[in-house]
Amino acid sequence: MQPVELTKAFRLLNHGPTTLITSANADKRNIMAAAWVCALDFKPPKVTVVIDSSTYTRELMEAEGTFAINLPCVQQIDLVKQVGSISGRDLPDTDKFAEYGIETFPAQEISAPLVSHCVAWLECRIIPEPHNQSSYDLFIAEVVAAYADERVFSDGHWHFDGHDDLRTVHHIAGGVFYATGQAC
Amino acid sequence: MQPVELTKAFRLLNHGPTTLITSANADKRNIMAAAWVCALDFKPPKVTVVIDSSTYTRELMEAEGTFAINLPCVQQIDLVKQVGSISGRDLPDTDKFAEYGIETFPAQEISAPLVSHCVAWLECRIIPEPHNQSSYDLFIAEVVAAYADERVFSDGHWHFDGHDDLRTVHHIAGGVFYATGQAC
Repeated sequence: MQPVELTKAFRLLNHGPTTLITSANADKRNIMAAAWVCALDFKPPKVTVVIDSSTYTRELMEAEGTFAINLPCVQQIDLVKQVGSISGRDLPDTDKFAEYGIETFPAQEISAPLVSHCVAWLECRIIPEPHNQSSYDLFIAEVVAAYADERVFSDGHWHFDGHDDLRTVHHIAGGVFYATGQAC
Repeated sequence: MQPVELTKAFRLLNHGPTTLITSANADKRNIMAAAWVCALDFKPPKVTVVIDSSTYTRELMEAEGTFAINLPCVQQIDLVKQVGSISGRDLPDTDKFAEYGIETFPAQEISAPLVSHCVAWLECRIIPEPHNQSSYDLFIAEVVAAYADERVFSDGHWHFDGHDDLRTVHHIAGGVFYATGQAC
């Protein structure tokens, strides 16, 4: 895991991978899968994320003002499917991390936990835009820190060859995913 | 080319493919490559697109209020790289379509031309959001018609197996693209 220069953070998202969004507030934390995540600007790096108003992840990220984007890979596909299948609200005595044995490590700039064994991480601070949030479930955020697994991303470039298990994933619908494929 | 049910149009974009944006106003038309395109809602289907204020495509799409999202495939990768390398403004006596021999066909609901040999097309009508447009170069639009090449998308699902040349593409940066890979 190596830091990614902030001006190159957009390259982590440019190819449209599906993500895991994590958030935390007080002693609560949650995780959900999200495909509607997109780069918005280079410098400072900004992103858009669409998070449904019914989600527990959103409640925590709005309360805290921050969240993390984790990029899962092929070897985590079962985890990605699991966290999308149940709400953290429905686990009154535990949380999704404990329920599914999801390992995490602390972020540097924000409270949300980062998911171990992902291949990239972006720590994000929400830029309040109440109209977008209430009308479209659309959040704009600045990326305040970014990291990647140097086996597949270094010097601002992805290089998946020889690491098929570490390829990022792309969700279509209904639990159907594609791996990031060959360079072309 | 078959119509795509509007409630399933998000599935054309859910995996984060790079797109070609086309727009037209009066007797002018233009085309550019754009990776920052994302689904925003299911019903009615909405999308976000980020289009720099300096682009000719944006001038035309703002004047007309509509644009098209075309999904190019592996066999069009040279075209995708070409249209990203020059501005339509710099071709005073012709346009990019003529300059590069890009075949098109008419859209049904909007004026922007659709690019032949792509694998999916979304006709979009801008929902005016002046703050987003001026502050973030961010446009929100409703999808008013959608189509796909039935060889690779039908019944709401992509199926690229056996059609490697028709796989959608994902841009990282600097002309580096990945094809949509294997199902996982």
